[in-house]
Amino acid sequence: MPDAKKNPLQEVTHETRTEVRTLIANARHAALAVLTPESGHPACSRVGLATLEDGTPIIFISALAAHTGALVGDPRCSLLIGDPGKGDPLAHPRISIACTGAELAPDSDDAITARQRYLSAHPKAKLYIDLPDFRFFRLDPIDASFNGGFGRAYALSASDLLQRD
Amino acid sequence: MPDAKKNPLQEVTHETRTEVRTLIANARHAALAVLTPESGHPACSRVGLATLEDGTPIIFISALAAHTGALVGDPRCSLLIGDPGKGDPLAHPRISIACTGAELAPDSDDAITARQRYLSAHPKAKLYIDLPDFRFFRLDPIDASFNGGFGRAYALSASDLLQRD
Repeated sequence: MPDAKKNPLQEVTHETRTEVRTLIANARHAALAVLTPESGHPACSRVGLATLEDGTPIIFISALAAHTGALVGDPRCSLLIGDPGKGDPLAHPRISIACTGAELAPDSDDAITARQRYLSAHPKAKLYIDLPDFRFFRLDPIDASFNGGFGRAYALSASDLLQRD
Repeated sequence: MPDAKKNPLQEVTHETRTEVRTLIANARHAALAVLTPESGHPACSRVGLATLEDGTPIIFISALAAHTGALVGDPRCSLLIGDPGKGDPLAHPRISIACTGAELAPDSDDAITARQRYLSAHPKAKLYIDLPDFRFFRLDPIDASFNGGFGRAYALSASDLLQRD
């Protein structure tokens, strides 16, 4: 945990929420951390990313990939979103979101929405979006840590990230 | 685990080793997955990256950051290296390395080498490299999964990644 005296968290404002929601909505990929079955060793891999209308991240992954089996076995996961640009990679905004993953049942309303939104974000995914071994998972945020660059650290709740009435 | 019939792993050759060693040596940042103390929830964050002479990844992290406490509590971690470029983010090479983290004792030979090599890779880090709360960790590879783009998957050993006599 950060030492509040030396590294105080910033207050979360309307502008912070807008900034992180925009960062997530514009992301096309993320690093996904999952737990390796049996060993429990953390495992980090790249995933293609889109969002549902309320901002919930969705990923589209192959049943043949190790992260898919890991998520099915233990839904606890973490997403890192936000690309570094030029210069110091730690000067660029990024957000780490603790999530719970859940597969979207094929042909469910959520899966149909996810397919449309994923294709809109990833037009080239039409080459493989209907392969039988690929699945959509929704990653429901629990909480998050947003680092906007040096000295800009925020602790966020799920409701800070999502647009819900 | 991949289904060997449907998604065969490629044979690791000298060219594969050269490709992954170059990818790691040129990387300036990575996604780090660690285990959150007590809960065991995976947590993914960005870290600045360099390498020791044999290719062992080193990271430079603040004692105030959550990932540092996590690594001290449980050294099991995973690094994702390799930036996506334009187009489909899954078409670009990346490597996931299962590692064991170990802090380099301040003023040890390894820490002095790490400082030199990190500054060479990150000239702007001179602004904070001597702050007292920052530490170097070496991340010793256990094994790795290299994805060079669609249809190019390899399982690698630590010796495939490191240049050792």
